Amino acid sequence: MSTTLSAPPLGLLLEDIVRRHRPRQNAGSVPTNIPFLATVPFDRFGIAVATTSGEVFSSGDAGVPFSIQSISKVFTLAMALQGGRSAGLWSRVLREPSGTSFNSLVQLEAEKGIPRNPFINAGALVVTDHLLEETPDAATQLLRFLTEQAGSPGPFIDEAAAAGELDSSSRNLALAHFLKDFGNLTRPAAVVVENYVRQCSIMMTCVQLAKAGLFLANNGQGTSGTVLSPSETKRIGSIMLTCGMYDAAGEFAYRVGLPGKSGVGGGILVIVPGRCSICVWSPRLDAKGNSLAGTAALADLSDRTGWSVF
Amino acid sequence: MSTTLSAPPLGLLLEDIVRRHRPRQNAGSVPTNIPFLATVPFDRFGIAVATTSGEVFSSGDAGVPFSIQSISKVFTLAMALQGGRSAGLWSRVLREPSGTSFNSLVQLEAEKGIPRNPFINAGALVVTDHLLEETPDAATQLLRFLTEQAGSPGPFIDEAAAAGELDSSSRNLALAHFLKDFGNLTRPAAVVVENYVRQCSIMMTCVQLAKAGLFLANNGQGTSGTVLSPSETKRIGSIMLTCGMYDAAGEFAYRVGLPGKSGVGGGILVIVPGRCSICVWSPRLDAKGNSLAGTAALADLSDRTGWSVF
Amino acid sequence: MSTTLSAPPLGLLLEDIVRRHRPRQNAGSVPTNIPFLATVPFDRFGIAVATTSGEVFSSGDAGVPFSIQSISKVFTLAMALQGGRSAGLWSRVLREPSGTSFNSLVQLEAEKGIPRNPFINAGALVVTDHLLEETPDAATQLLRFLTEQAGSPGPFIDEAAAAGELDSSSRNLALAHFLKDFGNLTRPAAVVVENYVRQCSIMMTCVQLAKAGLFLANNGQGTSGTVLSPSETKRIGSIMLTCGMYDAAGEFAYRVGLPGKSGVGGGILVIVPGRCSICVWSPRLDAKGNSLAGTAALADLSDRTGWSVF
Amino acid sequence: MSTTLSAPPLGLLLEDIVRRHRPRQNAGSVPTNIPFLATVPFDRFGIAVATTSGEVFSSGDAGVPFSIQSISKVFTLAMALQGGRSAGLWSRVLREPSGTSFNSLVQLEAEKGIPRNPFINAGALVVTDHLLEETPDAATQLLRFLTEQAGSPGPFIDEAAAAGELDSSSRNLALAHFLKDFGNLTRPAAVVVENYVRQCSIMMTCVQLAKAGLFLANNGQGTSGTVLSPSETKRIGSIMLTCGMYDAAGEFAYRVGLPGKSGVGGGILVIVPGRCSICVWSPRLDAKGNSLAGTAALADLSDRTGWSVF
Repeated sequence: MSTTLSAPPLGLLLEDIVRRHRPRQNAGSVPTNIPFLATVPFDRFGIAVATTSGEVFSSGDAGVPFSIQSISKVFTLAMALQGGRSAGLWSRVLREPSGTSFNSLVQLEAEKGIPRNPFINAGALVVTDHLLEETPDAATQLLRFLTEQAGSPGPFIDEAAAAGELDSSSRNLALAHFLKDFGNLTRPAAVVVENYVRQCSIMMTCVQLAKAGLFLANNGQGTSGTVLSPSETKRIGSIMLTCGMYDAAGEFAYRVGLPGKSGVGGGILVIVPGRCSICVWSPRLDAKGNSLAGTAALADLSDRTGWSVF
Repeated sequence: MSTTLSAPPLGLLLEDIVRRHRPRQNAGSVPTNIPFLATVPFDRFGIAVATTSGEVFSSGDAGVPFSIQSISKVFTLAMALQGGRSAGLWSRVLREPSGTSFNSLVQLEAEKGIPRNPFINAGALVVTDHLLEETPDAATQLLRFLTEQAGSPGPFIDEAAAAGELDSSSRNLALAHFLKDFGNLTRPAAVVVENYVRQCSIMMTCVQLAKAGLFLANNGQGTSGTVLSPSETKRIGSIMLTCGMYDAAGEFAYRVGLPGKSGVGGGILVIVPGRCSICVWSPRLDAKGNSLAGTAALADLSDRTGWSVF
Repeated sequence: MSTTLSAPPLGLLLEDIVRRHRPRQNAGSVPTNIPFLATVPFDRFGIAVATTSGEVFSSGDAGVPFSIQSISKVFTLAMALQGGRSAGLWSRVLREPSGTSFNSLVQLEAEKGIPRNPFINAGALVVTDHLLEETPDAATQLLRFLTEQAGSPGPFIDEAAAAGELDSSSRNLALAHFLKDFGNLTRPAAVVVENYVRQCSIMMTCVQLAKAGLFLANNGQGTSGTVLSPSETKRIGSIMLTCGMYDAAGEFAYRVGLPGKSGVGGGILVIVPGRCSICVWSPRLDAKGNSLAGTAALADLSDRTGWSVF
Repeated sequence: MSTTLSAPPLGLLLEDIVRRHRPRQNAGSVPTNIPFLATVPFDRFGIAVATTSGEVFSSGDAGVPFSIQSISKVFTLAMALQGGRSAGLWSRVLREPSGTSFNSLVQLEAEKGIPRNPFINAGALVVTDHLLEETPDAATQLLRFLTEQAGSPGPFIDEAAAAGELDSSSRNLALAHFLKDFGNLTRPAAVVVENYVRQCSIMMTCVQLAKAGLFLANNGQGTSGTVLSPSETKRIGSIMLTCGMYDAAGEFAYRVGLPGKSGVGGGILVIVPGRCSICVWSPRLDAKGNSLAGTAALADLSDRTGWSVF
């Protein structure tokens, strides 16, 4: 790949990215409702790139596990779309940007319990409920999927963190009961929320996440065969670009120009269609809930490689 | 009292009201989320008046128990205000009309978890939570209060109906978890909702409800002593007039001109300050959720007695 | 009247009210969008009572003209209901509390251009448009009506103030064009807003306003004959009680217990059904836009006379 | 270019697209508020492609002028960003998807008069106001810009249509006055709306629009030199992809996978970064307001060329 770039070879480039973007002071914020995230040192910074030609490059803390949080929504959606299992899903959740906060109930009420997209919390709860129609433990199934894509020894659920997060899940429980009131939840609200929270509490490294997301850059082809059809893969990419960065999708589309999904654990997964998947991680967040250093690093990387789709 | 009226004596008047307003055909609707309410014959109609001079007049099905539903909110609010127990309550719930549906989450989100008034569901949940700070079983405490005011043998909780209603309480659970997310609920959401639903499932007759509500027309003096101060009594009356009839408070203020509180069981409790309390009951509801025949009967009664406060 | 009170005779009572409530320091606020209101000295305070028996009592600055602002909405509504002219009006404006800011566009959009009640700005614009169907100059017609009720020499339009207020009427113009978009405005938006602003810019004294509002306490009988039917009069009283004090209707119903309508000029008109009309004025406002000293004075007066309807 | 495709040469491909997608029956709708658009025959269908290598391909009614409507918003934004003129613009309008109707006032109220993006009506009014700071006639300036890019004889303003559209512009006038109330409009509301409507009433052919939009696919290089910097060009592309298709941006991103902007005249302008710009036109619209046949044709074209950015 490096032959197509005027930039330095990718490995060197990532090292330079780490040098430039690893935080030197404790700027940004941490989510108040998930206490353990505040304990991660502010200067953690890792980046990994997995290419469609099979190479993996990484730098910084790319081997340190972190909480994937909402990045899990990309993979539960992928699982829900696998093997024609999407039947019925798209009548229960839309695929449009929401324009409101990721955990808002307002739009849900106005739109009669149909969440705007699978990446706001209400939509992710519907996706989890959809998965629970085929398995009693969607979180463990997701863990298995991620492990298969990322290689082992690999991802694990931080059950202590999940238990703590469950204790402050009132908003998600409100969303789940609200969905149920509209007839858009099959399983008990508490079961769906518990699975959702455990999915969010999966711990992975940048390298693992980049490898796990590679099928999204590779027409649906994963490390051990077909994960999704090219069409469903394109579907996820388009939802990532329009809805993946909370209320900063437009800004991220401009600065980075690539489909991405962030989590409040500080990770961001980005897809360069046909070329590679990227995972960057740094724990402190900007006002929109996206990794401060991670977003800056991705903008820099996009500028220097010309990978923007625009 | 009849001496002050150009209308016939009150007993005869109530008989005439029953004659005129008892439904002859099955008009109006029943709430879809509480199945057992649909089983009540459409032609049930009762009315009772308890005067501050100690008389009780009644006619029609005034001795038939019905589900008091949201009329319970008047009494839980009264209990919450008793004996100076209101400390802290008014920072958790406002006293203004809402302008939105009784079970809406929208305004609650915009106003950071502070319900608009104690008669919308969110506000009643906060009141119940407030009561639960002093008792583990607010519903039984309410039953005791109502029995004391109404005389025995009297009110009872229809536990089967309560269980059924709990099964379709997703919206209320959503509201409760949402309140908790905003820090405006002390007890577990499920506990608060269960108490709330059991309060709503209390069965009373028109005669019992008129007697139980008499203190609201009598400066706070109940059947066995002071229930509330005159000032707190006035408070409840003003909230009934501005917020007591769901989204038809303005229309009811015009047509009847008296503080009232309705329930989807078809009951309406009305206060004539200084004079009497009235309970009318007929199960079929208008589009706003208030008893169709009951509202018409109260408008008629108000016209013929001149009891409107306007 | 004084014979029915344990309070002092009404004249003395009003003098005491002025003594107690005339502001001694510049507390409260003035509306930022109507500059000339800020020029009124903060210690202005007047009160007047006109009784159904024909007497007028007053004290303090009750003879100083002030800008009636939104109190005009009570009288334009009365004019719109006169002589059966209400045909069609109640399909264009509701009669329920709004729960949102007096100049909000949100509810108007949700409810397809039908304002919640005639006392929020959108509703008052519809009422003015309704009046304009019969006259080219609704403001002058209102002035004539008020002069007839209040006696002359009397009310006048402060045209300079009106011109200034028109310059900062963007919100009202937005509301008017929005109503027009929904087909709920017949005349040009600019014409309706100009009339509305000139109505608000009428200058009256407390004595004049109390006299002008007397028909609302007197079953519709004004100083020179019938203004409204008893039923339409009751209608206006009920709207005043549920919607007359911006977002503090519930609080005012509790503290004062009487139908009232305030204006940002610092005036409040209050009705004691069957007994009298009251106008109090003091220019500084509380956070809800109601006269700070005026509201306190009315609460005091209500306490000492027992005039609350609750 | 055809050498990189397994599809037929582009000219033949466009002919086939017209053959497949030209409407055979009158499906879809026309906007009710712009009467003259209903007079366009339903079976009009044209498509044109302008490549960065300087070629232009077209088929069907690609030479018939149509009303560009909201496609104008792309070009007024480009003009506003030219030559560093964007100073101040991005504090007056955001760059995020809105999630609400293109002409909604609700979000504008919640967000204090800062429109969500330049492609909803409120945002486009702000952009027009921004242009009016440098020219008294922004519509004519836009016409000049489009003519320069598209070649002459070319675009023209349909003044009769503009006059008709102005008559039904109450919603846009409401938006403009609302913006002014929030201090986010410099020029008079009527002036801004008139310019906006005349911009929307510009008539162009598919060929002209494809040529005019070519700079957006070409790093900002237009037919006669630099229009925008590469960075500003990328900015517009990202806003097109996330916000360009009203409330169907997500669906369009999936089905077509390219930045696009539609107008209710039935035109859609699409950018294939680095490769070409495409304009398709067919007058009947789907439920979201986008050309029914045009969207289907673009999805087909994207499938057969592999031009999707995902």
